[in-house]
Amino acid sequence: MTNQNQACTKSDIAGVSFSIHPMSNAFITIIKNALKEADTSKVHMKTDDVTTTVRGKLVHVFDVTKAIFLHAAKTGEHVAFQATYSLGCPGDSQGDAFMEVDDVPLNADSVKDIKQQVAAKFSLYPLGGGDYMDVIYAQIEAMKEYVSVSPAHYSTRLDGEAFEIFQGLEKVFKATADSGSSHTVMTVSISANSPSHKVEGSDA
Amino acid sequence: MTNQNQACTKSDIAGVSFSIHPMSNAFITIIKNALKEADTSKVHMKTDDVTTTVRGKLVHVFDVTKAIFLHAAKTGEHVAFQATYSLGCPGDSQGDAFMEVDDVPLNADSVKDIKQQVAAKFSLYPLGGGDYMDVIYAQIEAMKEYVSVSPAHYSTRLDGEAFEIFQGLEKVFKATADSGSSHTVMTVSISANSPSHKVEGSDA
Repeated sequence: MTNQNQACTKSDIAGVSFSIHPMSNAFITIIKNALKEADTSKVHMKTDDVTTTVRGKLVHVFDVTKAIFLHAAKTGEHVAFQATYSLGCPGDSQGDAFMEVDDVPLNADSVKDIKQQVAAKFSLYPLGGGDYMDVIYAQIEAMKEYVSVSPAHYSTRLDGEAFEIFQGLEKVFKATADSGSSHTVMTVSISANSPSHKVEGSDA
Repeated sequence: MTNQNQACTKSDIAGVSFSIHPMSNAFITIIKNALKEADTSKVHMKTDDVTTTVRGKLVHVFDVTKAIFLHAAKTGEHVAFQATYSLGCPGDSQGDAFMEVDDVPLNADSVKDIKQQVAAKFSLYPLGGGDYMDVIYAQIEAMKEYVSVSPAHYSTRLDGEAFEIFQGLEKVFKATADSGSSHTVMTVSISANSPSHKVEGSDA
């Protein structure tokens, strides 16, 4: 078992701790179906009573979380997704990391046609270095290639299709790690089908 | 308006971006009542369709989020709480920060008798410095004074009373900032009344 003591990861293992919250009495069914519909055979996944942890190659960690979110959101219920992605955390175990698999994402075809407008916020945290704000600014700019981007307190707001938002998140997370950040953390909140969604992104 | 571009905070303004998710068809009522029952008159608070932002003195930021969580959880519904606390983010605006108020927490008396067993995970991220892992290890040790602590992937698990967990989170967050971290971020996930709660903390 790994933790912040023995702590997170050798540089090539990616991981995420996430939770998905359908605001519905049917939450158990929605979560279970979403977990079942996603093909998780190229990652290590463990669900407990607080979060679900997925570990493996970066491409599969994003592929699996994107698929689970989209399968839950397509029910039409108000679904919230919260995730902390991590790469390079010092001390992650090498075990159970599924690093021997190929790079072909298993869920790309099954979710690419699910249309789902969402509102999201993300924050990037490159740890251990002094120039981390420059890295953050550059990646916020890069995100604009994918979706609508606007300022928010302590984060950056994204409005658009969920599929494209996940593409953008994967890209900026990978670019941050590739740029030399030895330990990269990214928090993401996504809301789908909220009764309070308004066109807020455009007035910021 | 502030964001990661103009970005987060002058060192004495604390802030949090959080969301609370009741897994129930009555989620709107539960959220609205919890926000109403908490006394938020010593902080700046703004709710949008993704998260709620609270800014002000550290003591009040924790007082208000603890109260909102406890008022939602006491309904007995399965409630999830996700928060990213922040202090010292370079570029936070000085406006609307409610720094002129005194240090007396407004919600302490009204929530201190709400008994609510929860499972939680937290991660501390002191940014911009090279020895951040030592700071993290020290604060995980400090947390043991408050509640049961056990390892988890990319975070540390906490089991106990919600009131005490929030006391501990406030203490370690403040200690991290006081120890010299110029920009401190802490992510927290808390789950109350989950149908899948088990005694997991004891077997880690």
